[in-house]
Amino acid sequence: MVVLILTGGYGLEGSCGLVVGDIVSRLEQKGVGYRVFRNDNTILPIIGEPDCWNSDAVKQLKDLASSSSAIILVSPEYHGTMSSTMKLQLDWLSKDELSRKPIGLVSLLGGTSNTSTLNHMRHVCRWLGAICIPEQIAIPEGRTHLEDGKISNPDLSNRLDTLIDSLLEITDKLS
Amino acid sequence: MVVLILTGGYGLEGSCGLVVGDIVSRLEQKGVGYRVFRNDNTILPIIGEPDCWNSDAVKQLKDLASSSSAIILVSPEYHGTMSSTMKLQLDWLSKDELSRKPIGLVSLLGGTSNTSTLNHMRHVCRWLGAICIPEQIAIPEGRTHLEDGKISNPDLSNRLDTLIDSLLEITDKLS
Amino acid sequence: MVVLILTGGYGLEGSCGLVVGDIVSRLEQKGVGYRVFRNDNTILPIIGEPDCWNSDAVKQLKDLASSSSAIILVSPEYHGTMSSTMKLQLDWLSKDELSRKPIGLVSLLGGTSNTSTLNHMRHVCRWLGAICIPEQIAIPEGRTHLEDGKISNPDLSNRLDTLIDSLLEITDKLS
Amino acid sequence: MVVLILTGGYGLEGSCGLVVGDIVSRLEQKGVGYRVFRNDNTILPIIGEPDCWNSDAVKQLKDLASSSSAIILVSPEYHGTMSSTMKLQLDWLSKDELSRKPIGLVSLLGGTSNTSTLNHMRHVCRWLGAICIPEQIAIPEGRTHLEDGKISNPDLSNRLDTLIDSLLEITDKLS
Repeated sequence: MVVLILTGGYGLEGSCGLVVGDIVSRLEQKGVGYRVFRNDNTILPIIGEPDCWNSDAVKQLKDLASSSSAIILVSPEYHGTMSSTMKLQLDWLSKDELSRKPIGLVSLLGGTSNTSTLNHMRHVCRWLGAICIPEQIAIPEGRTHLEDGKISNPDLSNRLDTLIDSLLEITDKLS
Repeated sequence: MVVLILTGGYGLEGSCGLVVGDIVSRLEQKGVGYRVFRNDNTILPIIGEPDCWNSDAVKQLKDLASSSSAIILVSPEYHGTMSSTMKLQLDWLSKDELSRKPIGLVSLLGGTSNTSTLNHMRHVCRWLGAICIPEQIAIPEGRTHLEDGKISNPDLSNRLDTLIDSLLEITDKLS
Repeated sequence: MVVLILTGGYGLEGSCGLVVGDIVSRLEQKGVGYRVFRNDNTILPIIGEPDCWNSDAVKQLKDLASSSSAIILVSPEYHGTMSSTMKLQLDWLSKDELSRKPIGLVSLLGGTSNTSTLNHMRHVCRWLGAICIPEQIAIPEGRTHLEDGKISNPDLSNRLDTLIDSLLEITDKLS
Repeated sequence: MVVLILTGGYGLEGSCGLVVGDIVSRLEQKGVGYRVFRNDNTILPIIGEPDCWNSDAVKQLKDLASSSSAIILVSPEYHGTMSSTMKLQLDWLSKDELSRKPIGLVSLLGGTSNTSTLNHMRHVCRWLGAICIPEQIAIPEGRTHLEDGKISNPDLSNRLDTLIDSLLEITDKLS
């Protein structure tokens, strides 16, 4: 089983990158394979710009999604929904790669908790024929709950474990 | 396998009732068990009204949901979302009955097609821990596509077959 | 100017009723007229039930909405969206009463803050042609921030003042 | 009065550009000023990429938004919501430019009509303190209703007139 992780942050430096790293650690501990799409190394084109339809970056993203068993999306909430960076990655994917694929959702917010980014990502994934698991996590208040390079808040950390376990179980059952 | 069908129309007389009848016919043809909750015979209390917490009607609804393998929700769209009648049924249910339960969604609209009722029901079901399948149907334009006591539009009819097949398959895999 | 207040709780006994009372106090202090629709005294019929189309209760609700300058909706969040009790009231209203009417939105949640009930009410009001003001309040954590018969949390209380001031200002400008 | 138009298509070549052109014609006929942000000439940075915080392109977008009286957003629907190109423009804006600003919404879909892109843009604009007018238009079925360089479907064309008139009227009243 291989889990693809997409981040709506730029690369892996910021808060989303930290959460991606935490997810990676947990998958490694379970012996589950993973891939991380580096959107700072593999720059996706704007849709419609010259030559965008023959982009190697898009092909790489599509190949990663096709060959993965499940996906975890980690997006910051910008103005009440997923970042344009996350949406750009989803814009380039299609039912060809995502139909019936199990997906787990995580969002990071600067302020108070809210599920609207999760709701909008769930909506897009549904549109693409994917099966989002019911477990989801909104991490509020910026870096408050992210210390020592991982999710330090015990409740959020437990919920991430539950999300990953559920994703792996449902992926296994649906395969 | 037993599929519970909830309708957001009043009883089974109107357009929703007709769609419920069509779903029942298809389940019968497949030899799949089903239950229909008659919200006109079993009147659910308003939440908060005197004695509502000991309601036999609520107990019946909860027992039906608990003992079903999967659920199909059929709601009219009123003012851009599910009817109060559908919401009342969902309000009385909880994670105890719906957690991990596969759900299929159907909406009926008086005018142009739209998914907002489906989106809102999907949101509520997620909140209750259920797993809504990606297939869904919005039946537009009132009775236009409902003739001879069934969904007469071939495309919508095919999509209902696909929805039911997917629901049964996913229910089987997740059980 | 007359502001109509609708509650998604049952009557005025619970947390929503307390918030309605707080809003009433603030309107009185400003010398602004108000009406409160008592959904426990004036029982709206289920849509579709016998004789529902000639209901006096519905007529009363419609008259109240028509004759008001603005509306404030106060709903509990049940399973991620407005209560069926709030939806029933909105189901019985139409563009005839709500087109271009300014609306302010308040939700109450048992747990963590979230805007999904506000989002769904905003969606319905838009559908009905109303103009929801951008200010809105989600009151989290049950009774925690409701003490001494009013909103006791200073930040939430200030935000309610801002919401009411904005509603009155926009109502005045749009009239 | 100056209306800013943002498009979620790439530049002004495609279907969104055609609709932008139609809106421009109507504003010109009314003698209303307008600006169009050319996202193909003024390339916005990805949020977080090196030097993004000092971008001239971002400054130009913010200045345009600040100096406009109202905004019209025209986005394609990609996978059930606004394009990443539209979201990138909204991501770079803030309450500083959009608070209390009246906004009108238009979406273009390849297939069946749906309001989900409009809903999500409305949600983001609310978050930014803007006041979206209730009138909105979803243009379905690709180029079907776009002929001779304008919206050729009479109903959709009339609705665009109504949207523009309402936007100008509400902008005038709220100013």
